[in-house]
Amino acid sequence: MNRDLRVCFVGDSFVAGVGDPDFRGWVGRLASAAHAEGIPLTAYNLGVRRQTSAEILRRFRAECAPRLPDGVDARVVLSFGVNDAMHENGGSRVAPDESVANLGELLAQAGERGWPVLMVAPPPIADDEHNARTAALDERFAQVCAAAEVPYVRVHQLLRDSAVWAADVRAGDGAHPGAAGYEEMAALIVPQWRAWLSR
Amino acid sequence: MNRDLRVCFVGDSFVAGVGDPDFRGWVGRLASAAHAEGIPLTAYNLGVRRQTSAEILRRFRAECAPRLPDGVDARVVLSFGVNDAMHENGGSRVAPDESVANLGELLAQAGERGWPVLMVAPPPIADDEHNARTAALDERFAQVCAAAEVPYVRVHQLLRDSAVWAADVRAGDGAHPGAAGYEEMAALIVPQWRAWLSR
Repeated sequence: MNRDLRVCFVGDSFVAGVGDPDFRGWVGRLASAAHAEGIPLTAYNLGVRRQTSAEILRRFRAECAPRLPDGVDARVVLSFGVNDAMHENGGSRVAPDESVANLGELLAQAGERGWPVLMVAPPPIADDEHNARTAALDERFAQVCAAAEVPYVRVHQLLRDSAVWAADVRAGDGAHPGAAGYEEMAALIVPQWRAWLSR
Repeated sequence: MNRDLRVCFVGDSFVAGVGDPDFRGWVGRLASAAHAEGIPLTAYNLGVRRQTSAEILRRFRAECAPRLPDGVDARVVLSFGVNDAMHENGGSRVAPDESVANLGELLAQAGERGWPVLMVAPPPIADDEHNARTAALDERFAQVCAAAEVPYVRVHQLLRDSAVWAADVRAGDGAHPGAAGYEEMAALIVPQWRAWLSR
């Protein structure tokens, strides 16, 4: 029997592909890239707008379990942090230490179920102060993943340097890009995505 | 403030778009069609492979609630039935009366939350006996929806008459089409989709 690869992509609005008129986002583009390379998979997009790591943690197991039954090559891609770093009522929606703890708990829960994880960094938006907070989280997320031997895709700084991303976000709602920006983000993830799938 | 339209598409593998190398399925195509007509929306794809109406009912509220917060134009598109009609161990996975009851309960739960529903018929596969059972369900689903004043999109028979759909399913795994088949299915749904969004 062929490999039956199923991947849950769990995270926020960027995972959901908000802003992309093609409704593919970086998630759909990664799935298509794998398919084109002869790796068919079932992709479940579980991105939800405005969600922080705390909200993602609350639904993580319940939503992934029915999509990743026993006997399949079951995997999880995580990506969040922009909403954690959002300032509301004088502070971040989620304190950095809590974001880090939530990531640790998500990795632990995936580990218990035997689901390999790939983590993708939170992207930048059109707000430098917000981005500075996200970049600090990015750094800490990278450390947590390194300690857990989970591959972490460092797209944050690369997208800050991307004229395509910046222009697309400005042309959109100030946070989300359109098709071109998601294409750019997917292209940055593809090498590690490919390596992770071949493990 | 602009209309903030969010639609959860809840159902089975056909909702998930299994088989489409573009990872858009009929759901992504409907969302793109709305966007192209100046109706931006957030689309959440909650299709899960192999799921029957009973399994969908179990996760319906828990998965839709965090995606459809108060204050948005929150809606639900349902589509299932092919897995209910699947024969296993000498009978259908879900008895027709139970499928009908599950649909009724889903409509009731959506009604309680104030989520308008559009229901899409289960499509045919490359198995005439299975299709006969699905067609019987299709008929009963149409009656339930008519009684509840929920629009029901009768794609089942139209897709049985579609050479594009049949060829695409045969070229695939015998159940799921590729991009061309999903394009065909989406085109059949678009008129009622458009009318429902403008309500």
